[in-house]
Amino acid sequence: MNTFGNKFRLTTYGESHGLAVGGIIDGCPSRIAIDMEAIHRDLVRRRQGALRQEEDEIEWLSGLKDGITMGTPIAFTIRNKNTRSEDYDQLADCYRPGHADYTYEQKYGLRDHRGGGRASARETVARVVAGAIAKQVIAPVEIHAEATLTGPEDVNDTHGGVVSCRITSLPAGIGEPIFNKLNARLAFAMMSIPSAIGFEMGAGFAAAEMKGSEYIDRWNGGLNASNNQAITKTNHCGGIQGGISNGMPVEFRVAFHPVVTLPQPVECLTADGEMRTLQVNGRHDRCQVPRAAVVVEAMAAMTIADLI
Amino acid sequence: MNTFGNKFRLTTYGESHGLAVGGIIDGCPSRIAIDMEAIHRDLVRRRQGALRQEEDEIEWLSGLKDGITMGTPIAFTIRNKNTRSEDYDQLADCYRPGHADYTYEQKYGLRDHRGGGRASARETVARVVAGAIAKQVIAPVEIHAEATLTGPEDVNDTHGGVVSCRITSLPAGIGEPIFNKLNARLAFAMMSIPSAIGFEMGAGFAAAEMKGSEYIDRWNGGLNASNNQAITKTNHCGGIQGGISNGMPVEFRVAFHPVVTLPQPVECLTADGEMRTLQVNGRHDRCQVPRAAVVVEAMAAMTIADLI
Amino acid sequence: MNTFGNKFRLTTYGESHGLAVGGIIDGCPSRIAIDMEAIHRDLVRRRQGALRQEEDEIEWLSGLKDGITMGTPIAFTIRNKNTRSEDYDQLADCYRPGHADYTYEQKYGLRDHRGGGRASARETVARVVAGAIAKQVIAPVEIHAEATLTGPEDVNDTHGGVVSCRITSLPAGIGEPIFNKLNARLAFAMMSIPSAIGFEMGAGFAAAEMKGSEYIDRWNGGLNASNNQAITKTNHCGGIQGGISNGMPVEFRVAFHPVVTLPQPVECLTADGEMRTLQVNGRHDRCQVPRAAVVVEAMAAMTIADLI
Amino acid sequence: MNTFGNKFRLTTYGESHGLAVGGIIDGCPSRIAIDMEAIHRDLVRRRQGALRQEEDEIEWLSGLKDGITMGTPIAFTIRNKNTRSEDYDQLADCYRPGHADYTYEQKYGLRDHRGGGRASARETVARVVAGAIAKQVIAPVEIHAEATLTGPEDVNDTHGGVVSCRITSLPAGIGEPIFNKLNARLAFAMMSIPSAIGFEMGAGFAAAEMKGSEYIDRWNGGLNASNNQAITKTNHCGGIQGGISNGMPVEFRVAFHPVVTLPQPVECLTADGEMRTLQVNGRHDRCQVPRAAVVVEAMAAMTIADLI
Repeated sequence: MNTFGNKFRLTTYGESHGLAVGGIIDGCPSRIAIDMEAIHRDLVRRRQGALRQEEDEIEWLSGLKDGITMGTPIAFTIRNKNTRSEDYDQLADCYRPGHADYTYEQKYGLRDHRGGGRASARETVARVVAGAIAKQVIAPVEIHAEATLTGPEDVNDTHGGVVSCRITSLPAGIGEPIFNKLNARLAFAMMSIPSAIGFEMGAGFAAAEMKGSEYIDRWNGGLNASNNQAITKTNHCGGIQGGISNGMPVEFRVAFHPVVTLPQPVECLTADGEMRTLQVNGRHDRCQVPRAAVVVEAMAAMTIADLI
Repeated sequence: MNTFGNKFRLTTYGESHGLAVGGIIDGCPSRIAIDMEAIHRDLVRRRQGALRQEEDEIEWLSGLKDGITMGTPIAFTIRNKNTRSEDYDQLADCYRPGHADYTYEQKYGLRDHRGGGRASARETVARVVAGAIAKQVIAPVEIHAEATLTGPEDVNDTHGGVVSCRITSLPAGIGEPIFNKLNARLAFAMMSIPSAIGFEMGAGFAAAEMKGSEYIDRWNGGLNASNNQAITKTNHCGGIQGGISNGMPVEFRVAFHPVVTLPQPVECLTADGEMRTLQVNGRHDRCQVPRAAVVVEAMAAMTIADLI
Repeated sequence: MNTFGNKFRLTTYGESHGLAVGGIIDGCPSRIAIDMEAIHRDLVRRRQGALRQEEDEIEWLSGLKDGITMGTPIAFTIRNKNTRSEDYDQLADCYRPGHADYTYEQKYGLRDHRGGGRASARETVARVVAGAIAKQVIAPVEIHAEATLTGPEDVNDTHGGVVSCRITSLPAGIGEPIFNKLNARLAFAMMSIPSAIGFEMGAGFAAAEMKGSEYIDRWNGGLNASNNQAITKTNHCGGIQGGISNGMPVEFRVAFHPVVTLPQPVECLTADGEMRTLQVNGRHDRCQVPRAAVVVEAMAAMTIADLI
Repeated sequence: MNTFGNKFRLTTYGESHGLAVGGIIDGCPSRIAIDMEAIHRDLVRRRQGALRQEEDEIEWLSGLKDGITMGTPIAFTIRNKNTRSEDYDQLADCYRPGHADYTYEQKYGLRDHRGGGRASARETVARVVAGAIAKQVIAPVEIHAEATLTGPEDVNDTHGGVVSCRITSLPAGIGEPIFNKLNARLAFAMMSIPSAIGFEMGAGFAAAEMKGSEYIDRWNGGLNASNNQAITKTNHCGGIQGGISNGMPVEFRVAFHPVVTLPQPVECLTADGEMRTLQVNGRHDRCQVPRAAVVVEAMAAMTIADLI
């Protein structure tokens, strides 16, 4: 289903080369004066360096009155303007390697082959809009993400990387035990981002090779005077214990695989099982990771907004 | 909430040193003859090498008639017998480092301090029971997990490790696009396991350092004769594209941090912010990873059962 | 939350005098050729006799390719054109009797007072669009509703009535036992329609005054040759037993209270607890029941589409 | 699915003649001292006058510590003791009229024919337990239901009736607009009770025959001094406008059809479409309505607990 969240809930729609992409935000508290400029800034971060440049002009259809949330659903639409669908004509009946062409066809029996259709990362624009609103809802909790590793740059090739994210000022006691752990909810949110292939909290995979006496986060003694919460000397657990925030910063990383549209020709598979070598013409970036950081922030913000 | 899944749904209950742990499985199809021996085998795998040895005798309260599922809720109870609650008396008013003692107290304002209470890995017994049933529901899909890395063994210390899991015979087309991606659902399931701290599909974090031309899974040409599905030369994506299975094996790994109960005395925090050095007496294993493999299988089986 | 359904799911948005009303249909099966004319006919039924005449021109933003569903979210927008917001200026700071003005203000702390805002029956246009699609999804199941009672017509007054609905060709075995009974789901759907105040299945409230020997639906003997299903001599239960359809027509009635905007001046309440006599100028119908029939059909169709 | 509610959530299990019935209450706030005597009183009300007398002894398996809720799932089990399954042997292969025998068989392909199996009103014992806890959670909101009409008593026959319910001290502003209206949620809850066949709020079906000027609830002037909320001269709407409580008592009625097990022999249908006249021996009451009142209260209490 195309809905994220339970209380703060985003439902998105739209194909890459359809009329529009957009969404409905449901469960946003009333009486919040939305900072439109902050939304605009996040959209700029999302499209920085992209070959396909869209204006991303948002039309607000409901839920706001003089820029103030009313508690009713906030619907928004962003028209797709800069499409070059003819670039994709040759893909109508064959599947690129590394893309979701084949899996969509298997699931639905048809697909919109233009620009990746629904599977395109174009849909993340709706996540960024909703995430920018979520950030305003959860203030003073703050979220910051950035690319901390990018793969090897090489002529005529693509690469991926890692985004690191840090959530600060989140009080202790947020999250659910057992299944809906805060770390599980964050993993779910992050792994839903296009090209995400790994997730780790705190020390992450490195923790698997540590001794317990190295890993364990020792109490720093006393309670934080400003909020009466405990602090630890290290933060290997990434700010969550038993699925519930402990008051320390929540820290995690998301790995992204390289962009799967290569600049050079690739062998595609036809519905008949034949191979066909194609030069895919669509505008595809060499590396999406710097742009993914704001999407990571958006998903984290919506996860937190859904829980508090 | 203590429920996992939407269609195939497990709700669990129970504290480590309470009367019992157990659960209700809802949405299990009718007319399946349950192989009780298979459930027993998985429970044995879960408790192998554990210091606290429970018989894990299951009482089936509903949902079965002559061992056949009726489509009605399957409730089961496992009594806690081998508890030594007096070991935990000293923890009633102080919080161990690395445990969920403090976060539960922050969330609920009270907790059952005996044996970790609800936060204990004791609750995974219910997951294993439901997972063993889920495996029978999803046949011929098969799931196999095992510990492929364990941290450094050292006298007087604990360690963690990595569990690798492989799902075979899953047809292409399973999973949802956008938010409820199969990989996102698996990440959610795995990160809910006690001590899980990282998750990666296919090439995982290593993919972040690969070039696109290395990473991309090329078509092998032709379709698999037995099921008419496509195959790829490599499986760096881990069997999922655009959130939907592509017919190749689904492969992922889960990192576990070291056991957080150290054999030596540790400094605990009291509610007043004081430090108190305690020797925790409860029976705690040095490494939980070999036992975690069957829990990984259980969560994977329930995730798949929920989607097909 | 502004979402109806679990598998076939409608999320709506829009205020009566905002830019637009509309929705996102999620979970609609792929490869259905939508009959746009049928949607148009239902929209005509919904606005027949209404004082405020809107064209209800639908813009389809996603999910369709050449009029065929793709399995992706179907987003649609209907612009509000024929608004006369100035009619409502006097209501900005006072609450009409019988309306949701006061309750919205209590819940959200603010409201859009123009034309009832989100609480206006204007939002049912999105239900009718989605319902018309749901009808096409559930074919050959058929749904027919009509006004079977309208209250006393009188000069200078409003009235309500009863809509009767019949679902035919629904096979036996549809619905869930215990909480999500088909009758409970229908009651939920119908009571969500603006002005609905009562719901009854089959013999309904009259059954409370019958003897068991009169009420019980006796088997007619043999099985229906065309579908091998049982038939009963009467249908007092309305086609559902234990929450599950029994193959007979599903029959229910929905009572609607009179339109609460009276033609004559009424005493309104201000936020300060003062009374103010106002003549409400908005265009309000004397009786909404004939128009409500198609909304009843829409909600029934979505309920069934969600279950099969 | 066998779960009711979203935040305050009950999942039930158990067949009438199985080992036990029971449930898991999830989402109950922590630190509530449960009044066990109040639960006992409601269970006594539920079984008053019943032919099958069960002790309804509750075993609490989790979630409580010294009678105080911990915020973790509360699991409870009630053993079935007073079963006479041999009374039902003759029903193994045929379907009684008016019962869910046929519909369960159609849905699941098998059923527990003893005492109605899962479809038996025996399952309402779990609702009453959870409802009694919900009442304590929502205090000072109060709920009172009673039978206000019972059908014609006659020798050798059964009858039904009507239960009226009143919720007081519920503040204004509770409920959701559009689909999850408080009245829709109550209708859903009530129509899920075995034998419920009609639901109406306030003036209900009678409102369909009133003029608007009679129906409309006029403001009484001023605000209630004790809670600063508005009051109306009448309460024809039943305390809910636009799906949201308005601070007046919430009032509704539930119609129950007659008990469908007649004292005299009835014609049953076999799987082959044959008719067979049977005297059903199970212990069945002549009228269930007085006992249903406490179930109505339980469902109302859980509905309110889920929303506040």
